[in-house]
Amino acid sequence: MTEALLLDLSGVLYDGGDIIPGALEAVRRARQSPLALRFITNTSQRTRAALLRHLRGLGFELAPEQLFTAVDAARQWLRQRGLRPYCLVHENIRGEFYDFDQRDPAVLIADAAEGFSYASLNRAFQLCMAGAPLLGVGYNRYFKSGGELLMDAGAFIRAVEFAAGVEAVIVGKPGAEFFHQVTDSTGVAPGRALMVGDDVFGDVEGALNAGLQACLVRTGKYRAGDEGRVAGEFAVVDSVAEAVALALPRP
Amino acid sequence: MTEALLLDLSGVLYDGGDIIPGALEAVRRARQSPLALRFITNTSQRTRAALLRHLRGLGFELAPEQLFTAVDAARQWLRQRGLRPYCLVHENIRGEFYDFDQRDPAVLIADAAEGFSYASLNRAFQLCMAGAPLLGVGYNRYFKSGGELLMDAGAFIRAVEFAAGVEAVIVGKPGAEFFHQVTDSTGVAPGRALMVGDDVFGDVEGALNAGLQACLVRTGKYRAGDEGRVAGEFAVVDSVAEAVALALPRP
Repeated sequence: MTEALLLDLSGVLYDGGDIIPGALEAVRRARQSPLALRFITNTSQRTRAALLRHLRGLGFELAPEQLFTAVDAARQWLRQRGLRPYCLVHENIRGEFYDFDQRDPAVLIADAAEGFSYASLNRAFQLCMAGAPLLGVGYNRYFKSGGELLMDAGAFIRAVEFAAGVEAVIVGKPGAEFFHQVTDSTGVAPGRALMVGDDVFGDVEGALNAGLQACLVRTGKYRAGDEGRVAGEFAVVDSVAEAVALALPRP
Repeated sequence: MTEALLLDLSGVLYDGGDIIPGALEAVRRARQSPLALRFITNTSQRTRAALLRHLRGLGFELAPEQLFTAVDAARQWLRQRGLRPYCLVHENIRGEFYDFDQRDPAVLIADAAEGFSYASLNRAFQLCMAGAPLLGVGYNRYFKSGGELLMDAGAFIRAVEFAAGVEAVIVGKPGAEFFHQVTDSTGVAPGRALMVGDDVFGDVEGALNAGLQACLVRTGKYRAGDEGRVAGEFAVVDSVAEAVALALPRP
């Protein structure tokens, strides 16, 4: 039985500026159902405000408090500990961390895209070698954009972890804490929440490890055979329309 | 009993342009002893010719055939398989691969230093996703230069491995094949060869896994506590002078 529905964004609802067929109607149906609905993303190339604008521009209706981002989770984690990050992040979201004093050593790695250089990664490595905690948005391997697969933040987090011999704190998916922040906001137990995503590791495996139900969609970055790369029981469907139909209470 | 001595270069014999105290005399003693002597390095910021010039300029005597580099091993591996590499390597050694047709997909990652960018790593990732074999010089985490620790090729190999979900073929240390190429050239069994290095993973753990004896020196990139990071039996000494003394036959 499912009482809460968590939807990943990119690759599930849209691909860049294109709506995944059936996604608008699927979200509308979910909104009109008794399901608690949340949107959950590791995307770190856009601010929360820009994400909301993008979703609404495409025609998706949601309240700001229904959107959970790994960038918000990073801000909260740093804030709670009074840490000041060296930010290896995309220039688009740099402003989200302007209110932190950035002199002090914690390292935050998000999807910095062209901001990943030998110099910036080396600086992150040196801070970690000197004892700074390493914070990562998620272990995302790659994402799809304009029909191309592109390396995502996870690979660069792994690089710094390996070089410095440390383990990152993952604030977004697949971290269990992030999934629980979202389910806690619904009042629904994790076991009664369904996570829908196109990333078999970050979305599906992460959700299962956090005690949620999971559903893999064959859109976005999905590649044939992905369902075999993760153990555990989860649904595999063609798109978010089918995923929502699965989650809706039987009439 | 030790019949062959394998010496790592950077951090064991020299640090940049500075000779490690006692290293010249240690190599001289080894040359005059019955030990088979070899030099073995993953360094990939210099060509073999430049490395030989550097060593000789510092006063170390060696024959070209005593020097084994991971870059040579990469050339040989690609040559044997008729593969043409996309080279993510330092501009200094780019010329070592000019005689390969570079249109076809194999990926070689060495220490590219500033050559590591989002664009170049992403290209390597995309080729690997399309099925190109990934070749790495070694899993070196960092090296020391001008008193600073700097990220080495291993971290970037890990990044591409993780993003593409593949495992690299390691042509240099800690690959057992590389150690065996060197011991084979001496006619001495691996178990009677001693590897001396400052990298507890690449030099010590790699040598032990390949069936060699190993000795960690407390120079170069060595950091207090490194000896505890690897299991197995190996010697730990202050510098190469002491390592050579250990290897020399008792008078």
